[in-house]
Amino acid sequence: MSLSKILIANRGEIAVRIIRAAKELGLKTVQVYSSADETSLAVQMADEAVEIGPPAAKKSYLDIDAVLKAARETGADAIHPGYGFLAENAEFADAVAAAGITFVGPSGDVIRRMGDKASARQAATEAGVPTVPGSQGVIDDLNEACRLAENIGFPVMIKATAGGGGRGIRIANSAGEFMALAPQASSEAEAAFGDGGLYLEKVIERARHIEVQILGDGENFIHCYERECSLQRRRQKVWEEAPSAALSSDVRERLCASAVALAAAVRYKGAGTIEYLYDDASGDYYFIEMNTRIQVEHPVTESITGIDLLAEMIAVAGGQPLSVRQEDVTYRGHAIEVRINAEDPAANFMPFPGVVGDLRIPGGPGVRFDHMLYQGYQIPPFYDSLLGKLIVSADSREKAIIRLKRAICELGLDGLKTTAPLFKALAEAPDVLSGDVHTKWLEPWLEANSDKLSSQ
Amino acid sequence: MSLSKILIANRGEIAVRIIRAAKELGLKTVQVYSSADETSLAVQMADEAVEIGPPAAKKSYLDIDAVLKAARETGADAIHPGYGFLAENAEFADAVAAAGITFVGPSGDVIRRMGDKASARQAATEAGVPTVPGSQGVIDDLNEACRLAENIGFPVMIKATAGGGGRGIRIANSAGEFMALAPQASSEAEAAFGDGGLYLEKVIERARHIEVQILGDGENFIHCYERECSLQRRRQKVWEEAPSAALSSDVRERLCASAVALAAAVRYKGAGTIEYLYDDASGDYYFIEMNTRIQVEHPVTESITGIDLLAEMIAVAGGQPLSVRQEDVTYRGHAIEVRINAEDPAANFMPFPGVVGDLRIPGGPGVRFDHMLYQGYQIPPFYDSLLGKLIVSADSREKAIIRLKRAICELGLDGLKTTAPLFKALAEAPDVLSGDVHTKWLEPWLEANSDKLSSQ
Repeated sequence: MSLSKILIANRGEIAVRIIRAAKELGLKTVQVYSSADETSLAVQMADEAVEIGPPAAKKSYLDIDAVLKAARETGADAIHPGYGFLAENAEFADAVAAAGITFVGPSGDVIRRMGDKASARQAATEAGVPTVPGSQGVIDDLNEACRLAENIGFPVMIKATAGGGGRGIRIANSAGEFMALAPQASSEAEAAFGDGGLYLEKVIERARHIEVQILGDGENFIHCYERECSLQRRRQKVWEEAPSAALSSDVRERLCASAVALAAAVRYKGAGTIEYLYDDASGDYYFIEMNTRIQVEHPVTESITGIDLLAEMIAVAGGQPLSVRQEDVTYRGHAIEVRINAEDPAANFMPFPGVVGDLRIPGGPGVRFDHMLYQGYQIPPFYDSLLGKLIVSADSREKAIIRLKRAICELGLDGLKTTAPLFKALAEAPDVLSGDVHTKWLEPWLEANSDKLSSQ
Repeated sequence: MSLSKILIANRGEIAVRIIRAAKELGLKTVQVYSSADETSLAVQMADEAVEIGPPAAKKSYLDIDAVLKAARETGADAIHPGYGFLAENAEFADAVAAAGITFVGPSGDVIRRMGDKASARQAATEAGVPTVPGSQGVIDDLNEACRLAENIGFPVMIKATAGGGGRGIRIANSAGEFMALAPQASSEAEAAFGDGGLYLEKVIERARHIEVQILGDGENFIHCYERECSLQRRRQKVWEEAPSAALSSDVRERLCASAVALAAAVRYKGAGTIEYLYDDASGDYYFIEMNTRIQVEHPVTESITGIDLLAEMIAVAGGQPLSVRQEDVTYRGHAIEVRINAEDPAANFMPFPGVVGDLRIPGGPGVRFDHMLYQGYQIPPFYDSLLGKLIVSADSREKAIIRLKRAICELGLDGLKTTAPLFKALAEAPDVLSGDVHTKWLEPWLEANSDKLSSQ
């Protein structure tokens, strides 16, 4: 390993996860933090910690100059961006490289190409990966795009090329709606991402969200099988599992091979995820986008394959080849991750920051809880509400769901309201038990089952 | 599953482990406790809890009548004995059965046969399993036994047939020592176990302790590979791993097959462990004893095989067949367990009970901590000092040791002294790293490295 000190340009549970991986690789760790995160677990666990600004992320975790200054001052020779914040910011990757520091992730050029939804679609098409019927590249002319939408057939989805996290997306059911909504989506994306470019895709009804974890070292490209993340609320994943219960081994093989083909086409370096919509009626899958970073839900893949994805991505950034070959990647059993957020599911998921009272961490076989908590910790109200990710694994999906229920009952988080009751209810929902879900399943279920979402 | 409510006749971390398994199987749980354990984690986690006596184990956890009374009063239809206490007490197993309650373990007769070291040796010989050269059955005549010892060759080990936990054992280096020590061993065993019977075994120098996990349902008998537990202090295991780094795949196959042969010979029902001494110079292995219960170190086997041993043993007790066939048992990676005891390794491992202050549970990939702790918990001074077992797994032994060090650094247990510093030092000891250890390795190492055993 050519690296010796890594700076973590993130916070929360993923900062803790990166510190753990770095320590196991023998690297020193530097945690940057906003003034709101001085008492965070990651700051306590890192070898060094540097305050880089006030609570507002724009002036701390999103401030490229402040992060680079901390790296120079501490002599860090690598920066891990985690997810969110600067993780898919090509300018950041370029600036890190220009400062002579190793960016743990692909190059700025690859981030730009795959982060732009329209050019990523094009890369997928070139690599022979099926995409959702839609526009080739960015929409230049609204009238022309509307005619294309009519040809594809409504409903169509209008998406921001720079999008993420569900922003900059509209669904148009007719030409009239299209002409009204497209400018809205563009200005929303312009405000959120500084780029108002749009493209359009056919809406696949009752689709499942299936994504393939890939790893590359620039010369070797492998997949670590798929994850299914069909349970979404406001386009945010809330429950993720691996493997998908919906895939035949034949479809799995083709899907994963297509992801490797795309990774190889862009000579990918690092950990990445290639996301698909899967139509289980027809067995067709369609590339939707690529995430050029580690994902929140990576632990389900680690659980079934035994591969340490963070260790691989850091080692590859340090110039080492992947430590596993495709033929050595196997999976065993079934894993599920649920997101424990400081939100009240009985009050429309209103954020519920507070102080962590008596804390009981679930344990025993097949239970992992990646979190940012300790007893007495005051959760700052400035960032997303993810407290931790509860990951369970067992030798079957059925047993993993039973284990999930058991582990949720063990989780004790006095003083806070969390999404835990949601997952207890979902683990008993017949459609979840049978695996009969799709990306539009959860929201109507939440409406119909609001009585099951209170803490007691 | 024919069972509906299980009583846990034990305490500490294993009680928590049993409760977790029972909940996942849909059973109600009853935790019995001495008055010293009223605030224990197991009591808090169980559906019901019944006080059965004062702190002294003889009047609570070892009181057969008190345990059976609690079972009758709560309507429990099964009793899990855990390890220690009544776990290998054949009279208890008989009394449970006579009360019409399911004992989670083999019958009293099998416990008697395999619990008596001399008759177990005989059973092994009959099943074609090699035993350490020594006496056939119990020593009747001291003079005759001394002549046998001379034939085998000194040093020989004098062992109590009813022994366990290192008591009732002496090593004789000559005929004179033999005649002096044998009566001592007999009276020690008489005092500890109510049975002064002795047998003798040749001392295998530089032997490794290797044991095979077996499961049986009375008709099917399988092994779940081996564990190595060569790091022992005063004959107590302190560090256990799976698989053994010392076995070739050929020896592993024969060793595990011999364990299955012995399990089949006694038509074993439940989880059991067949213990061997392994001479890695010659490649020979010798049966030493069988434990007819779940063992402290069972999680390393769960980690590498993915099999839930507690679930299997409870299901089998409830009349179900084993859920796995031998051909489905595979292992992946390497797991290590260390015993975190409330003892001060810098003060000759003096017990150090106290109140748990700030508590930090290690986490992340490949880390499991099976424990009995919560912040503010007052550890009672009446029982053994085991607080928890830290289990790590990774794709190689080398990486598992690195992960162990990382996890030990994360473990925060303010207010107590524990054996954690011992394991940090062991994880850096060259012989441990190379796997060049045997059952007599640890004690001289402790003498020579006492400076490495303090908390800071």
